[in-house]
Amino acid sequence: MGKSTNVVWHETHVGRSDREARRGHKGATIWFTGLSGSGKSTIANEVDRRLYEQGRFSYVLDGDNVRHGMNGDLGFSPEDRTENIRRIGEVAKLFVDAGALVLTAFISPYREDRDRVRNIADQPGDFIEVFVDCPLDVCEERDPKGLYKKARSGEIPNFTGISAPYEAPEQAEITVNTAEMSVEQTVDTIIEYLRNGGYLESSSTQD
Amino acid sequence: MGKSTNVVWHETHVGRSDREARRGHKGATIWFTGLSGSGKSTIANEVDRRLYEQGRFSYVLDGDNVRHGMNGDLGFSPEDRTENIRRIGEVAKLFVDAGALVLTAFISPYREDRDRVRNIADQPGDFIEVFVDCPLDVCEERDPKGLYKKARSGEIPNFTGISAPYEAPEQAEITVNTAEMSVEQTVDTIIEYLRNGGYLESSSTQD
Repeated sequence: MGKSTNVVWHETHVGRSDREARRGHKGATIWFTGLSGSGKSTIANEVDRRLYEQGRFSYVLDGDNVRHGMNGDLGFSPEDRTENIRRIGEVAKLFVDAGALVLTAFISPYREDRDRVRNIADQPGDFIEVFVDCPLDVCEERDPKGLYKKARSGEIPNFTGISAPYEAPEQAEITVNTAEMSVEQTVDTIIEYLRNGGYLESSSTQD
Repeated sequence: MGKSTNVVWHETHVGRSDREARRGHKGATIWFTGLSGSGKSTIANEVDRRLYEQGRFSYVLDGDNVRHGMNGDLGFSPEDRTENIRRIGEVAKLFVDAGALVLTAFISPYREDRDRVRNIADQPGDFIEVFVDCPLDVCEERDPKGLYKKARSGEIPNFTGISAPYEAPEQAEITVNTAEMSVEQTVDTIIEYLRNGGYLESSSTQD
Protein backbone atom coordinates (compact mmCIF):
# COMPACT_ATOMS: atom_id res chain seq x y z
CA MET A 1 0.00 0.00 0.00
CA GLY A 2 0.99 3.65 0.05
CA LYS A 3 2.66 5.68 -2.61
CA SER A 4 4.44 2.75 -4.18
CA THR A 5 1.13 1.44 -5.49
CA ASN A 6 0.89 4.54 -7.63
CA VAL A 7 4.05 3.87 -9.54
CA VAL A 8 2.44 1.07 -11.50
CA TRP A 9 -0.26 2.97 -13.37
CA HIS A 10 -0.41 0.38 -16.09
CA GLU A 11 -2.90 1.56 -18.71
CA THR A 12 -5.01 -0.97 -20.49
CA HIS A 13 -7.77 -0.12 -22.89
CA VAL A 14 -10.68 -2.12 -24.14
CA GLY A 15 -10.31 -1.53 -27.86
CA ARG A 16 -12.79 -1.20 -30.67
CA SER A 17 -12.01 -4.66 -32.04
CA ASP A 18 -12.70 -6.19 -28.59
CA ARG A 19 -16.08 -4.49 -28.49
CA GLU A 20 -16.95 -5.45 -32.07
CA ALA A 21 -15.99 -9.08 -31.47
CA ARG A 22 -18.11 -9.18 -28.32
CA ARG A 23 -21.12 -7.70 -30.10
CA GLY A 24 -20.76 -9.78 -33.23
CA HIS A 25 -20.89 -6.87 -35.65
CA LYS A 26 -18.85 -3.90 -36.82
CA GLY A 27 -19.22 -0.25 -35.96
CA ALA A 28 -19.89 2.36 -38.63
CA THR A 29 -21.47 5.74 -39.21
CA ILE A 30 -24.53 5.63 -41.45
CA TRP A 31 -24.81 9.24 -42.52
CA PHE A 32 -28.19 10.34 -43.93
CA THR A 33 -28.27 13.54 -45.94
CA GLY A 34 -31.19 15.20 -47.72
CA LEU A 35 -33.72 18.01 -47.68
CA SER A 36 -35.97 18.76 -44.74
CA GLY A 37 -38.97 16.45 -45.06
CA SER A 38 -37.14 13.92 -47.23
CA GLY A 39 -37.49 11.29 -44.49
CA LYS A 40 -33.98 11.06 -43.00
CA SER A 41 -35.05 10.84 -39.37
CA THR A 42 -37.92 8.45 -40.04
CA ILE A 43 -35.71 6.06 -41.99
CA ALA A 44 -32.85 6.31 -39.48
CA ASN A 45 -35.20 5.46 -36.62
CA GLU A 46 -36.69 2.52 -38.53
CA VAL A 47 -33.23 1.15 -39.35
CA ASP A 48 -32.33 1.63 -35.67
CA ARG A 49 -35.40 -0.36 -34.63
CA ARG A 50 -34.63 -3.15 -37.08
CA LEU A 51 -31.04 -3.37 -35.82
CA TYR A 52 -32.22 -3.23 -32.19
CA GLU A 53 -34.60 -6.13 -32.86
CA GLN A 54 -31.64 -8.09 -34.25
CA GLY A 55 -29.75 -7.42 -31.01
CA ARG A 56 -27.30 -4.98 -32.62
CA PHE A 57 -25.93 -1.90 -30.91
CA SER A 58 -27.23 1.07 -32.86
CA TYR A 59 -28.14 4.64 -32.01
CA VAL A 60 -29.63 7.66 -33.78
CA LEU A 61 -28.18 11.15 -33.63
CA ASP A 62 -30.65 13.70 -34.93
CA GLY A 63 -31.93 17.21 -34.36
CA ASP A 64 -33.93 16.13 -31.32
CA ASN A 65 -30.99 14.99 -29.24
CA VAL A 66 -28.15 17.09 -30.71
CA ARG A 67 -29.43 20.49 -31.82
CA HIS A 68 -30.89 21.31 -28.41
CA GLY A 69 -27.99 19.82 -26.46
CA MET A 70 -24.41 19.71 -27.65
CA ASN A 71 -24.98 22.09 -30.56
CA GLY A 72 -27.46 24.37 -28.83
CA ASP A 73 -24.96 27.22 -29.21
CA LEU A 74 -25.03 27.00 -33.02
CA GLY A 75 -27.36 28.64 -35.53
CA PHE A 76 -27.84 28.14 -39.26
CA SER A 77 -25.21 30.39 -40.82
CA PRO A 78 -22.80 28.59 -43.16
CA GLU A 79 -20.08 28.68 -40.45
CA ASP A 80 -22.40 27.28 -37.79
CA ARG A 81 -23.69 24.58 -40.12
CA THR A 82 -20.11 23.52 -40.80
CA GLU A 83 -19.28 23.43 -37.07
CA ASN A 84 -22.54 21.55 -36.41
CA ILE A 85 -21.56 18.81 -38.85
CA ARG A 86 -17.95 18.72 -37.63
CA ARG A 87 -19.03 18.04 -34.04
CA ILE A 88 -21.66 15.48 -35.06
CA GLY A 89 -19.00 13.70 -37.12
CA GLU A 90 -16.69 13.58 -34.11
CA VAL A 91 -19.43 12.27 -31.81
CA ALA A 92 -20.40 9.64 -34.38
CA LYS A 93 -16.75 8.59 -34.48
CA LEU A 94 -16.80 8.07 -30.70
CA PHE A 95 -19.89 5.85 -31.01
CA VAL A 96 -18.18 3.87 -33.78
CA ASP A 97 -15.15 3.44 -31.52
CA ALA A 98 -17.58 2.12 -28.89
CA GLY A 99 -18.68 -0.46 -31.50
CA ALA A 100 -21.97 1.14 -32.57
CA LEU A 101 -23.77 1.37 -35.86
CA VAL A 102 -24.62 5.04 -35.44
CA LEU A 103 -27.22 6.66 -37.68
CA THR A 104 -27.06 10.42 -38.18
CA ALA A 105 -30.04 12.31 -39.59
CA PHE A 106 -29.15 15.89 -40.48
CA ILE A 107 -29.69 17.89 -43.66
CA SER A 108 -25.89 18.37 -43.84
CA PRO A 109 -26.20 20.39 -47.06
CA TYR A 110 -22.50 20.96 -47.84
CA ARG A 111 -20.52 18.30 -49.67
CA GLU A 112 -17.26 19.51 -48.17
CA ASP A 113 -18.57 19.13 -44.61
CA ARG A 114 -19.74 15.57 -45.24
CA ASP A 115 -16.46 14.68 -46.94
CA ARG A 116 -14.57 16.00 -43.93
CA VAL A 117 -16.50 13.59 -41.71
CA ARG A 118 -15.76 10.78 -44.14
CA ASN A 119 -12.07 11.61 -44.00
CA ILE A 120 -11.69 11.56 -40.19
CA ALA A 121 -12.84 7.92 -40.07
CA ASP A 122 -10.40 5.46 -38.51
CA GLN A 123 -10.96 2.70 -41.04
CA PRO A 124 -12.16 2.42 -44.64
CA GLY A 125 -15.85 1.56 -44.63
CA ASP A 126 -16.53 3.41 -41.38
CA PHE A 127 -18.56 6.06 -43.20
CA ILE A 128 -21.62 5.11 -45.23
CA GLU A 129 -23.31 8.05 -46.91
CA VAL A 130 -27.03 7.63 -47.59
CA PHE A 131 -28.55 10.16 -49.94
CA VAL A 132 -32.23 10.50 -49.08
CA ASP A 133 -33.32 11.78 -52.45
CA CYS A 134 -36.70 13.46 -52.75
CA PRO A 135 -37.81 16.30 -55.04
CA LEU A 136 -38.21 19.65 -53.34
CA ASP A 137 -41.89 19.90 -54.29
CA VAL A 138 -42.64 16.57 -52.60
CA CYS A 139 -40.79 17.61 -49.43
CA GLU A 140 -42.61 20.92 -49.48
CA GLU A 141 -45.96 19.19 -49.93
CA ARG A 142 -45.25 16.97 -46.92
CA ASP A 143 -43.92 19.85 -44.79
CA PRO A 144 -44.39 17.81 -41.57
CA LYS A 145 -43.26 20.63 -39.27
CA GLY A 146 -44.63 23.55 -41.28
CA LEU A 147 -41.09 24.76 -41.91
CA TYR A 148 -41.37 25.24 -45.68
CA LYS A 149 -44.36 27.50 -45.18
CA LYS A 150 -42.34 29.64 -42.77
CA ALA A 151 -39.35 29.60 -45.11
CA ARG A 152 -41.48 30.75 -48.06
CA SER A 153 -42.91 33.60 -45.99
CA GLY A 154 -39.41 34.62 -44.96
CA GLU A 155 -40.03 33.81 -41.31
CA ILE A 156 -37.14 31.30 -41.39
CA PRO A 157 -34.03 32.56 -43.22
CA ASN A 158 -31.27 30.36 -44.68
CA PHE A 159 -33.64 27.46 -45.26
CA THR A 160 -32.09 24.65 -47.29
CA GLY A 161 -33.70 24.25 -50.68
CA ILE A 162 -35.49 27.62 -50.48
CA SER A 163 -33.00 30.27 -49.43
CA ALA A 164 -29.85 28.19 -48.83
CA PRO A 165 -28.16 25.63 -51.09
CA TYR A 166 -28.25 21.84 -50.92
CA GLU A 167 -25.34 20.01 -52.48
CA ALA A 168 -26.38 16.47 -53.35
CA PRO A 169 -23.79 13.70 -52.88
CA GLU A 170 -21.95 12.62 -56.00
CA GLN A 171 -20.80 9.23 -54.76
CA ALA A 172 -23.08 8.19 -51.93
CA GLU A 173 -22.79 4.55 -50.91
CA ILE A 174 -26.60 4.30 -50.93
CA THR A 175 -29.31 6.40 -52.59
CA VAL A 176 -32.96 5.99 -51.70
CA ASN A 177 -35.73 7.91 -53.45
CA THR A 178 -38.44 8.46 -50.89
CA ALA A 179 -40.92 9.84 -53.42
CA GLU A 180 -40.96 6.39 -55.01
CA MET A 181 -40.02 3.92 -52.28
CA SER A 182 -41.87 3.04 -49.12
CA VAL A 183 -40.18 3.39 -45.75
CA GLU A 184 -39.94 -0.38 -45.53
CA GLN A 185 -38.22 -0.59 -48.91
CA THR A 186 -35.65 2.04 -47.94
CA VAL A 187 -34.94 0.23 -44.67
CA ASP A 188 -34.56 -3.08 -46.52
CA THR A 189 -32.11 -1.45 -48.92
CA ILE A 190 -29.93 -0.18 -46.09
CA ILE A 191 -30.00 -3.42 -44.08
CA GLU A 192 -29.07 -5.33 -47.23
CA TYR A 193 -26.13 -2.99 -47.83
CA LEU A 194 -24.91 -3.64 -44.29
CA ARG A 195 -25.30 -7.39 -44.66
CA ASN A 196 -23.54 -7.52 -48.05
CA GLY A 197 -20.76 -5.26 -46.76
CA GLY A 198 -19.99 -7.59 -43.85
CA TYR A 199 -20.99 -5.02 -41.22
CA LEU A 200 -23.31 -7.43 -39.46
CA GLU A 201 -20.56 -9.91 -38.74
CA SER A 202 -17.79 -9.22 -36.28
CA SER A 203 -14.30 -8.69 -37.64
CA SER A 204 -13.07 -11.63 -35.56
CA THR A 205 -15.62 -13.89 -37.23
CA GLN A 206 -14.36 -12.78 -40.62
CA ASP A 207 -10.69 -13.41 -39.90
CA MET B 1 -46.17 3.00 -53.85
CA GLY B 2 -45.91 6.61 -54.98
CA LYS B 3 -46.41 9.73 -52.99
CA SER B 4 -49.13 8.29 -50.82
CA THR B 5 -46.56 6.11 -49.04
CA ASN B 6 -44.97 9.25 -47.72
CA VAL B 7 -47.99 10.47 -45.87
CA VAL B 8 -47.57 7.81 -43.23
CA TRP B 9 -44.22 8.83 -41.78
CA HIS B 10 -45.01 7.22 -38.47
CA GLU B 11 -42.08 7.85 -36.13
CA THR B 12 -41.10 5.19 -33.64
CA HIS B 13 -38.10 5.44 -31.40
CA VAL B 14 -36.22 2.77 -29.53
CA GLY B 15 -36.11 4.40 -26.12
CA ARG B 16 -33.57 4.39 -23.35
CA SER B 17 -35.63 2.05 -21.18
CA ASP B 18 -35.84 -0.45 -24.07
CA ARG B 19 -32.08 -0.40 -24.42
CA GLU B 20 -31.47 -0.70 -20.68
CA ALA B 21 -33.88 -3.61 -20.38
CA ARG B 22 -32.19 -5.38 -23.28
CA ARG B 23 -28.74 -4.87 -21.76
CA GLY B 24 -29.74 -5.74 -18.23
CA HIS B 25 -28.28 -2.63 -16.64
CA LYS B 26 -28.83 1.10 -16.39
CA GLY B 27 -27.04 3.92 -18.12
CA ALA B 28 -25.19 6.61 -16.16
CA THR B 29 -22.32 9.06 -16.40
CA ILE B 30 -19.47 8.27 -14.03
CA TRP B 31 -17.65 11.57 -13.91
CA PHE B 32 -14.05 11.49 -12.64
CA THR B 33 -12.54 14.78 -11.51
CA GLY B 34 -9.10 15.48 -10.05
CA LEU B 35 -5.65 16.88 -10.70
CA SER B 36 -3.45 15.84 -13.59
CA GLY B 37 -1.66 12.67 -12.52
CA SER B 38 -4.26 11.75 -9.88
CA GLY B 39 -5.18 8.61 -11.81
CA LYS B 40 -8.55 9.48 -13.40
CA SER B 41 -7.87 7.93 -16.78
CA THR B 42 -6.20 4.82 -15.36
CA ILE B 43 -9.10 4.14 -13.00
CA ALA B 44 -11.74 4.91 -15.64
CA ASN B 45 -10.10 2.46 -18.06
CA GLU B 46 -9.86 -0.24 -15.37
CA VAL B 47 -13.53 0.20 -14.43
CA ASP B 48 -14.35 0.05 -18.14
CA ARG B 49 -12.44 -3.21 -18.47
CA ARG B 50 -14.16 -4.70 -15.43
CA LEU B 51 -17.59 -3.74 -16.81
CA TYR B 52 -16.65 -5.04 -20.26
CA GLU B 53 -15.67 -8.37 -18.74
CA GLN B 54 -19.09 -8.51 -17.07
CA GLY B 55 -20.72 -7.98 -20.47
CA ARG B 56 -21.85 -4.43 -19.68
CA PHE B 57 -21.92 -1.60 -22.20
CA SER B 58 -19.39 0.97 -21.02
CA TYR B 59 -17.13 3.48 -22.70
CA VAL B 60 -14.42 5.95 -21.66
CA LEU B 61 -14.31 9.58 -22.79
CA ASP B 62 -10.93 11.11 -22.04
CA GLY B 63 -8.35 13.48 -23.42
CA ASP B 64 -7.16 10.95 -25.95
CA ASN B 65 -10.42 10.65 -27.85
CA VAL B 66 -12.05 14.03 -27.12
CA ARG B 67 -9.41 16.74 -26.87
CA HIS B 68 -7.94 15.98 -30.29
CA GLY B 69 -11.30 15.37 -31.93
CA MET B 70 -14.52 17.07 -30.96
CA ASN B 71 -12.85 19.66 -28.75
CA GLY B 72 -9.75 20.17 -30.85
CA ASP B 73 -10.83 23.79 -31.35
CA LEU B 74 -10.63 24.56 -27.63
CA GLY B 75 -7.70 25.67 -25.49
CA PHE B 76 -7.25 25.98 -21.74
CA SER B 77 -8.63 29.43 -20.98
CA PRO B 78 -11.43 29.47 -18.38
CA GLU B 79 -14.02 29.97 -21.15
CA ASP B 80 -12.65 27.13 -23.24
CA ARG B 81 -12.46 24.81 -20.23
CA THR B 82 -16.11 25.55 -19.51
CA GLU B 83 -17.11 24.85 -23.12
CA ASN B 84 -14.96 21.70 -23.10
CA ILE B 85 -16.85 20.34 -20.10
CA ARG B 86 -20.23 21.43 -21.45
CA ARG B 87 -19.74 19.49 -24.68
CA ILE B 88 -18.36 16.43 -22.89
CA GLY B 89 -21.38 16.49 -20.60
CA GLU B 90 -23.72 16.57 -23.60
CA VAL B 91 -21.90 13.71 -25.32
CA ALA B 92 -21.95 11.67 -22.11
CA LYS B 93 -25.71 12.29 -21.96
CA LEU B 94 -26.09 10.83 -25.47
CA PHE B 95 -24.17 7.71 -24.43
CA VAL B 96 -26.40 7.39 -21.35
CA ASP B 97 -29.45 7.69 -23.59
CA ALA B 98 -27.94 4.86 -25.64
CA GLY B 99 -27.86 2.82 -22.41
CA ALA B 100 -24.15 3.14 -21.59
CA LEU B 101 -22.23 3.41 -18.38
CA VAL B 102 -19.97 6.16 -19.67
CA LEU B 103 -16.80 7.08 -17.79
CA THR B 104 -15.37 10.56 -18.27
CA ALA B 105 -11.80 11.34 -17.22
CA PHE B 106 -11.07 15.06 -17.34
CA ILE B 107 -9.57 17.40 -14.76
CA SER B 108 -12.82 19.44 -14.91
CA PRO B 109 -11.53 21.91 -12.31
CA TYR B 110 -14.59 24.14 -11.92
CA ARG B 111 -17.40 23.10 -9.58
CA GLU B 112 -19.95 25.13 -11.53
CA ASP B 113 -19.12 23.34 -14.79
CA ARG B 114 -19.48 19.91 -13.19
CA ASP B 115 -22.75 20.91 -11.54
CA ARG B 116 -24.09 22.07 -14.88
CA VAL B 117 -23.44 18.61 -16.29
CA ARG B 118 -25.14 17.09 -13.25
CA ASN B 119 -28.16 19.30 -13.83
CA ILE B 120 -28.74 18.43 -17.50
CA ALA B 121 -29.22 14.76 -16.62
CA ASP B 122 -32.55 13.22 -17.62
CA GLN B 123 -33.05 11.21 -14.44
CA PRO B 124 -31.85 11.41 -10.83
CA GLY B 125 -28.87 9.11 -10.40
CA ASP B 126 -27.67 9.62 -13.98
CA PHE B 127 -24.62 11.56 -12.79
CA ILE B 128 -22.11 9.98 -10.41
CA GLU B 129 -19.26 12.28 -9.45
CA VAL B 130 -16.02 10.54 -8.48
CA PHE B 131 -13.44 12.73 -6.78
CA VAL B 132 -10.01 11.28 -7.48
CA ASP B 133 -8.31 12.83 -4.50
CA CYS B 134 -4.54 12.97 -4.45
CA PRO B 135 -2.21 15.58 -2.91
CA LEU B 136 -0.56 17.90 -5.41
CA ASP B 137 2.94 16.84 -4.35
CA VAL B 138 2.15 13.19 -5.06
CA CYS B 139 0.72 14.04 -8.50
CA GLU B 140 3.75 16.18 -9.21
CA GLU B 141 6.10 13.41 -8.14
CA ARG B 142 4.34 10.97 -10.51
CA ASP B 143 4.21 13.50 -13.38
CA PRO B 144 3.60 10.70 -15.92
CA LYS B 145 3.61 13.01 -18.93
CA GLY B 146 6.18 15.52 -17.67
CA LEU B 147 3.51 18.23 -17.58
CA TYR B 148 4.19 19.49 -14.06
CA LYS B 149 7.81 20.08 -14.97
CA LYS B 150 6.72 22.16 -17.93
CA ALA B 151 4.12 23.99 -15.84
CA ARG B 152 6.72 24.88 -13.18
CA SER B 153 9.08 26.22 -15.82
CA GLY B 154 6.26 28.32 -17.27
CA GLU B 155 6.28 26.41 -20.54
CA ILE B 156 2.62 25.42 -19.97
CA PRO B 157 0.43 28.29 -18.74
CA ASN B 158 -2.90 27.89 -16.90
CA PHE B 159 -1.93 24.52 -15.46
CA THR B 160 -4.39 23.24 -12.86
CA GLY B 161 -2.88 23.10 -9.37
CA ILE B 162 0.12 25.25 -10.36
CA SER B 163 -1.11 28.31 -12.21
CA ALA B 164 -4.86 27.66 -12.43
CA PRO B 165 -7.34 26.71 -9.69
CA TYR B 166 -8.82 23.31 -8.87
CA GLU B 167 -12.15 23.33 -7.04
CA ALA B 168 -12.62 20.02 -5.23
CA PRO B 169 -16.15 18.55 -5.13
CA GLU B 170 -18.10 19.17 -1.93
CA GLN B 171 -20.61 16.37 -2.34
CA ALA B 172 -19.13 13.79 -4.68
CA GLU B 173 -20.95 10.47 -4.73
CA ILE B 174 -17.61 8.67 -4.44
CA THR B 175 -14.18 9.81 -3.22
CA VAL B 176 -11.07 7.71 -3.75
CA ASN B 177 -7.68 8.70 -2.42
CA THR B 178 -5.12 7.40 -4.86
CA ALA B 179 -2.16 8.22 -2.64
CA GLU B 180 -3.45 5.59 -0.21
CA MET B 181 -5.48 3.13 -2.26
CA SER B 182 -4.34 0.79 -5.01
CA VAL B 183 -5.93 0.94 -8.44
CA GLU B 184 -7.72 -2.33 -7.69
CA GLN B 185 -9.18 -0.93 -4.46
CA THR B 186 -10.48 2.18 -6.21
CA VAL B 187 -12.04 0.06 -8.96
CA ASP B 188 -13.66 -2.20 -6.34
CA THR B 189 -15.09 0.86 -4.58
CA ILE B 190 -16.69 2.14 -7.76
CA ILE B 191 -18.09 -1.22 -8.86
CA GLU B 192 -19.56 -1.71 -5.38
CA TYR B 193 -21.23 1.70 -5.58
CA LEU B 194 -22.79 0.74 -8.91
CA ARG B 195 -23.97 -2.61 -7.56
CA ASN B 196 -25.44 -1.12 -4.37
CA GLY B 197 -27.09 1.67 -6.34
CA GLY B 198 -28.93 -0.79 -8.60
CA TYR B 199 -27.09 0.36 -11.73
CA LEU B 200 -26.09 -3.15 -12.68
CA GLU B 201 -29.66 -4.38 -12.90
CA SER B 202 -32.03 -3.23 -15.62
CA SER B 203 -34.88 -0.97 -14.61
CA SER B 204 -37.34 -3.55 -15.91
CA THR B 205 -35.82 -6.15 -13.57
CA GLN B 206 -36.29 -3.81 -10.65
CA ASP B 207 -39.92 -2.99 -11.30
